[in-house]
Amino acid sequence: MKLSLEQIKQLDDSYRKNLINSISGFKSANLIGTIDEEAKTNVAIFNSVIHLGASPALMGFIMRPVSVRRHTYENIRSVGFFTINHVLENFFVQAHQTSARYPENVSEFDACNLSTEFSDLIPAPYVKESSVKIGLEYIEEHRIQANDTILIVGKIMELFFPRQIVDNDGFLSLDKISTVAIGGLDAYFRPERVARLAYAKPNRQPSELIRD
Amino acid sequence: MKLSLEQIKQLDDSYRKNLINSISGFKSANLIGTIDEEAKTNVAIFNSVIHLGASPALMGFIMRPVSVRRHTYENIRSVGFFTINHVLENFFVQAHQTSARYPENVSEFDACNLSTEFSDLIPAPYVKESSVKIGLEYIEEHRIQANDTILIVGKIMELFFPRQIVDNDGFLSLDKISTVAIGGLDAYFRPERVARLAYAKPNRQPSELIRD
Repeated sequence: MKLSLEQIKQLDDSYRKNLINSISGFKSANLIGTIDEEAKTNVAIFNSVIHLGASPALMGFIMRPVSVRRHTYENIRSVGFFTINHVLENFFVQAHQTSARYPENVSEFDACNLSTEFSDLIPAPYVKESSVKIGLEYIEEHRIQANDTILIVGKIMELFFPRQIVDNDGFLSLDKISTVAIGGLDAYFRPERVARLAYAKPNRQPSELIRD
Repeated sequence: MKLSLEQIKQLDDSYRKNLINSISGFKSANLIGTIDEEAKTNVAIFNSVIHLGASPALMGFIMRPVSVRRHTYENIRSVGFFTINHVLENFFVQAHQTSARYPENVSEFDACNLSTEFSDLIPAPYVKESSVKIGLEYIEEHRIQANDTILIVGKIMELFFPRQIVDNDGFLSLDKISTVAIGGLDAYFRPERVARLAYAKPNRQPSELIRD
């Protein structure tokens, strides 16, 4: 089936939203935790968190246009820190629920039955239910001119993960803690490992990585 | 297990690369196809393709610093178009192999046993083996100051997908064609669907989406 730009434009809004959100492939599932200057916490689900670099260790995510109030954005800009927390299969329904539009004075932590957890270093709250958690400092942002979305860039300040999921080479087996993946806007997936492949070199086919 | 910024900096390079590449969660697996002004084709695997917006339909991906030659980047800038093609489980080994450093005059299509396919609209080559394919026009880029990586933004010009994977509401069931997900740098996963959840509203818990 082929769709041209003209045909895509003519699709029903909700159909187009589902289609275009699906077509990029599987996405990460993360809760981003923030706090405002009056210590009011906020947590929201994002499917756009990406790796930007290992040294320095950088991550980013996409904010929708701030033409309406976005607490996540306002808190990051005023306080300068945020947390990224993996969504695990045992609380993905609560994580999804953070996308509801709660009144201004309600913290999604309370409304969605998630718990805050704090470190000494980062003022932003972590999600206690998550077992892979990253504390970041805001460092830069880029406004996509074509639609006013914003790439937020953060520098990793600290990391938390269960010792039993890290392999000898630093790789994290996220399937062991059931980190979920997202398809489209609202579909949750459990990724099952197929293989790790050796570093690709021109004169040989990649072989499955042998690990102990 | 907790790692501070100082501890992360002191990790062995390869360990840090595996760890920091794993910690963002699951990532999309795509082949990006390009062509140069002399019609030489290029294809490379990326795990950083992201959704940027549905209307206009925009996608982006992260290019590593162009301090060394990157054919994907040069071709996109000189020709103005590129394709994004889902990596499916039946050719993920060939897709991984495109990351090997082949000599300048070798097309990864030939070296990795992948086939080109062309549309009337986009000069860049599609990957024939893939069944979800997107043709894009380059529209803007943003250089992340912290590490010189580049966010490339493209506008979707045309889309191809199998009719049998699109639901009535536009959602694509990518598990039906075995689109893979990536963990870290080199791990491939088969996502199994857990649930689609209804749009979240403040006064009810999300329920599983009923579809026909």
